[in-house]
Amino acid sequence: MPFGFRLETSQGSARAGILSTDHGDVCTPAFMPVGTQAAVKAATPETLDKIGAQIILANAYHLFLRPGIGIVEDAGGLHSFMSWTKPILTDSGGFQVFSLADLGKVTDDGVEFQSHIDGSRHLFTPETVIYAQARLGADIVMSFDYCTPFPCDRTEAEKAVALTTKWAERGAGVFGTLFNCNGYEQALFGIVQGSVYEDLRRRSRDELIELEFPGYAIGGLSVGEEKSQTWKITECVTEGLPFEKPRYLMGVGTPIDIIEAVARGIDMFDCVLPTRNARNGTVFTRDGKLVLKNTGYSRDFAPLDSDCRCYACQNFSRAYLRHLFLAGEIMGPILATYHSLCFYCDLMKEMRGAIFAGCFVEWRRGFVERYSSGETRE
Amino acid sequence: MPFGFRLETSQGSARAGILSTDHGDVCTPAFMPVGTQAAVKAATPETLDKIGAQIILANAYHLFLRPGIGIVEDAGGLHSFMSWTKPILTDSGGFQVFSLADLGKVTDDGVEFQSHIDGSRHLFTPETVIYAQARLGADIVMSFDYCTPFPCDRTEAEKAVALTTKWAERGAGVFGTLFNCNGYEQALFGIVQGSVYEDLRRRSRDELIELEFPGYAIGGLSVGEEKSQTWKITECVTEGLPFEKPRYLMGVGTPIDIIEAVARGIDMFDCVLPTRNARNGTVFTRDGKLVLKNTGYSRDFAPLDSDCRCYACQNFSRAYLRHLFLAGEIMGPILATYHSLCFYCDLMKEMRGAIFAGCFVEWRRGFVERYSSGETRE
Repeated sequence: MPFGFRLETSQGSARAGILSTDHGDVCTPAFMPVGTQAAVKAATPETLDKIGAQIILANAYHLFLRPGIGIVEDAGGLHSFMSWTKPILTDSGGFQVFSLADLGKVTDDGVEFQSHIDGSRHLFTPETVIYAQARLGADIVMSFDYCTPFPCDRTEAEKAVALTTKWAERGAGVFGTLFNCNGYEQALFGIVQGSVYEDLRRRSRDELIELEFPGYAIGGLSVGEEKSQTWKITECVTEGLPFEKPRYLMGVGTPIDIIEAVARGIDMFDCVLPTRNARNGTVFTRDGKLVLKNTGYSRDFAPLDSDCRCYACQNFSRAYLRHLFLAGEIMGPILATYHSLCFYCDLMKEMRGAIFAGCFVEWRRGFVERYSSGETRE
Repeated sequence: MPFGFRLETSQGSARAGILSTDHGDVCTPAFMPVGTQAAVKAATPETLDKIGAQIILANAYHLFLRPGIGIVEDAGGLHSFMSWTKPILTDSGGFQVFSLADLGKVTDDGVEFQSHIDGSRHLFTPETVIYAQARLGADIVMSFDYCTPFPCDRTEAEKAVALTTKWAERGAGVFGTLFNCNGYEQALFGIVQGSVYEDLRRRSRDELIELEFPGYAIGGLSVGEEKSQTWKITECVTEGLPFEKPRYLMGVGTPIDIIEAVARGIDMFDCVLPTRNARNGTVFTRDGKLVLKNTGYSRDFAPLDSDCRCYACQNFSRAYLRHLFLAGEIMGPILATYHSLCFYCDLMKEMRGAIFAGCFVEWRRGFVERYSSGETRE
């Protein structure tokens, strides 16, 4: 079955659709739990299934360095290696090469860098990165992009746009030759760069649209800029993207951020916040964030979120979770992750329902009101 | 329903029975996963259920210090606090007071100590310890015992036996007045001490038998003595214990240790080995221990244990587990714990089956042979 996206309905700019892959469908708007190193931290595939996760993300940079693409390939690909039968998206590692690694020479041809793990030297080219992702076997593969930090001057942002387009084209070239190499279809997305410069973002978007990718991502946002800039850039990119193709805002964000982005036409998200915060004892709930170590929870026998269906909320109290975190018990991260990922997945489902029901605006107002006035004892 | 133990069958000294509690039955020989701080490390109650764990252990010393008995009591007791509906045994904390805490004055009345967490000063008496466990709500409560280290001179061992008997009697006194305080029955076990001195062990055992406990434990073994001493002492204690009451060898042990102890008439076990080793990347299998970080597993796509039914073995390879441990992924401890606990529970089930089938001797020979000649790449 060919990779596809079907827009089912929309309300204002907010959209609900279905992404089809050979590993199953993904109802959008969708949140992708992050499994950087071929494992979503503290959540087994069994747990992710129960939570209702439809697609997860892994990272080609990390997997290239450890355990190595060859081992994952020999295991039968990422799905088999990590025992996840549903869709997987791999990020190209552009962001990681520019942020985590010790950056070497950047040329038209690619990026030389040193591993953040052992200092070993490597070269990523737009071709090798696509080839690596094809071998990993992700359903959705991301172009190798030139990621700019924030702040970023206009000259640097222009260079990023130019190289990102050039690399996207070269990546698409090699990707075309690899068609169906795993026996199922893979799709390659383009990534729009251009920092906070609206004209550069439009240029980047339009150059990528020329290349006719089946989906488009916005990279290089949520890296320190003002929220108002995030949304201005998101809007200026989405307003020109083809209506019938999925849009993915990379690395975003808090529940409120995600709602704001959906209101601006975004379909897909990934973010480490729910999992990373959970491991530190902070969970997201319909009443805002809870910092579980706070003394106020020591005899609070209510669940984390009174409206949550998850295993953690159905069986354990805030007092118990607080005890686990204070005692350094590994069960704390496990249960907190269970809840926060479930909360994110249910948030997407609720939003989708509201878009279908034509009440997204009211739903959004209600959610934000309760979330912001919550009892958050920080 | 009253607490009870029914011996179903035996072969030589090896026994199979059923322990009945108001939270359900426990088929023996049984292994109790250790949940010291009201959580079995890296295994949720849901996981423990799937694994087939029938009873778990928690520790009164740890829970007294954190979160405090009152909080657990207000949560509705340990079962409710940690969401475990099956039987729970709490250790009195005798062992911990003597090994973990900064020991203060030991008198006939009890033990003064300083918390290993914050140095706060506390007094445990045989009465307060029983009262604390009654409030925690365990199905099986352990007497407060005087634990000796190894080596231990005869004078010290004699003192331990004398105080342990005195404390057991005083504990039983207060326990009698608390009967059914939680609406279900609790049972108090005595603990035999006496280090490696056979006559002292016999004295301790016989003095406790006088007090008519519904079950007897052997404490102060597997603390550094030779294996031959462990088994000599185990035999000399069990040979005089009432046939119709359960026997619990505390803190033991490896798979082979457990088989050896069952062969000598032990019914119940607890040990941190499967969980602690799993978190460090070493798992127990039918072919011996596997140290997952070893290079040999980097492309080994076989399951941890080819004969294991557990979620980890059914879905993941040694190569994947090795990757998780090398990458420092929390999923490593989770999956390794899943397997090792399942392996321990299945070991007990197999042993019980062999005792029923009258082939315990042959089964034991076969297990030990395969386990010892395994491919363990340490």
